[in-house]
Amino acid sequence: MTEKEWIDLLKKYLQENHAHIIKSKNEDCGVIKLSKKTYLLFTTDALVEGIHFDFKYTSFSDLGKKLAVTNLSDIAAMGGEPKWGLLTLGSPAPIEISWGIPFIKSLTSTLKKFNTYLIGGDTVKSPVFFVNLCLIGITNNPILRKGANPEQFIFVSKPLGGSAAFLKMIKTKSLKEIPKNLKDAYFKPKPEILLGKKLSKLNLATSMIDISDGLLLDLWRICEENEVGAEIYEEKIPIEKFATLEDALTGGEDYALLFTIKKENVEKLKKLSLNLNKKVFFIGKIIKEQKLYLIKNNTKKEIQPKGFNHFVNEKGKGE
Amino acid sequence: MTEKEWIDLLKKYLQENHAHIIKSKNEDCGVIKLSKKTYLLFTTDALVEGIHFDFKYTSFSDLGKKLAVTNLSDIAAMGGEPKWGLLTLGSPAPIEISWGIPFIKSLTSTLKKFNTYLIGGDTVKSPVFFVNLCLIGITNNPILRKGANPEQFIFVSKPLGGSAAFLKMIKTKSLKEIPKNLKDAYFKPKPEILLGKKLSKLNLATSMIDISDGLLLDLWRICEENEVGAEIYEEKIPIEKFATLEDALTGGEDYALLFTIKKENVEKLKKLSLNLNKKVFFIGKIIKEQKLYLIKNNTKKEIQPKGFNHFVNEKGKGE
Repeated sequence: MTEKEWIDLLKKYLQENHAHIIKSKNEDCGVIKLSKKTYLLFTTDALVEGIHFDFKYTSFSDLGKKLAVTNLSDIAAMGGEPKWGLLTLGSPAPIEISWGIPFIKSLTSTLKKFNTYLIGGDTVKSPVFFVNLCLIGITNNPILRKGANPEQFIFVSKPLGGSAAFLKMIKTKSLKEIPKNLKDAYFKPKPEILLGKKLSKLNLATSMIDISDGLLLDLWRICEENEVGAEIYEEKIPIEKFATLEDALTGGEDYALLFTIKKENVEKLKKLSLNLNKKVFFIGKIIKEQKLYLIKNNTKKEIQPKGFNHFVNEKGKGE
Repeated sequence: MTEKEWIDLLKKYLQENHAHIIKSKNEDCGVIKLSKKTYLLFTTDALVEGIHFDFKYTSFSDLGKKLAVTNLSDIAAMGGEPKWGLLTLGSPAPIEISWGIPFIKSLTSTLKKFNTYLIGGDTVKSPVFFVNLCLIGITNNPILRKGANPEQFIFVSKPLGGSAAFLKMIKTKSLKEIPKNLKDAYFKPKPEILLGKKLSKLNLATSMIDISDGLLLDLWRICEENEVGAEIYEEKIPIEKFATLEDALTGGEDYALLFTIKKENVEKLKKLSLNLNKKVFFIGKIIKEQKLYLIKNNTKKEIQPKGFNHFVNEKGKGE
């Protein structure tokens, strides 16, 4: 079956109608209500050698950072504060100091930047090298994918497509030949923890997701969850320098936040953006019709949600 | 480096001296103090094809159960109540209904028996098949490995060695030829959630661990943590039928609890055992001298802690 079919099947076995469990389906994290005002966010992401990264151009230090960011970004996507993590490491050979230390240093120091601490894990032998991190976060006000309504504005939190452009270039170029901003987008993405937390605290975002599988696919996930559609304006989409529009629309691993807000809150968002010294980018609107449209000049063109599906397309990572 | 060296190195990067984090080193779970009386337990365990199980004699349904039990047992070892889980599944091929459903059914139904619910996860492509589960549990009174003192009594919660005996037999025998009790020990181990919870609630156990890597090795972990030793009585060690003493001492995957209690609490333990209709087995005593002794008749023999180390020994699973 396809990944989507498997996830649909999984959902039948996920528990939602149970005390404490607020949300477990179609979200970046499982959401657990611990008390009147405290919610736990619970997320996990794995990276497998040859599928999600290639040691030819990825160092163990890069890998530690990437593993932290991919998980932190899921907590950010729900407006949470990441807190504690567990690492599973599978390795064919005994761990060597030469790579074990750079990996664990980079992982834990990236987590620490966001006041997040590794508190344990499991180390196993495995024919292929893989790492899995799970994180617990906390929030008073989880922002779900559910909540977007027609006429609401769509924003993204950073220029898109940098990782996708890097992955295209590395096929034919050496690391040295690739522009620094694309290497940074791929190796040093920044999880949007602070912005996510503020959007939750100020109750500004009506829905939110992190863009890990491409703008169109992740925007479509918001649309599906809310039974709505969206129109986005081509000239408004922020594109990383040296990346193409296609990279921005269908690439992945951007770790940007995509969120919707009510029209009357745009001014508050602008203030927040100024306060945080952090740009946010208006890219379009939610519409009633359950379709995606790309608008250029005055031409409106329907587009299909496309992005990574790792059982079809080798290059990226799954949900 | 050896697994132990890696874990020692990891510990330098694990966080213990931080608000909320009670215990992260040398424990079955990370322990987080959420409020005056509520502690979170946080654990993860992975199973990799060809390392921890073999599809030649393990069905997907068996695998789902085993993954649940190995993680539930870590929560039991700290006296906790397991609550919520996340699954990571890595598969070389698209997931098929024929095995996806038996796996997820068995995993979720085993968890549900202990009121534990799967609330999400990650599905990835991987050259080797692996599964990773992480669980959150809750307790008011976490039982650590730390706490055992000389003269305290050592108990285990079930006959040992069944899984190890099964793994030896399956090398030369067909499934049909192997005694049912050994197959059950390997495929249908029971996590000791109820006993663990009661020992925590009644504050009976001074220290506790689950035996996943063999009695001697796990007992030695308790000893090392407390800078003590132990003497155990050969004739007192409960051995699964058809298993040998060696299986019981150095085998693994027993998922029994090993705990210490004060002499004056033995009567209370007996009452608890009657109330739960659950046998527990006295096997020896904690001693001052930091060594392990096996006593048979009146002969006292020093023994070396031995058990699974998966980077040395292929057959078992790591910590």
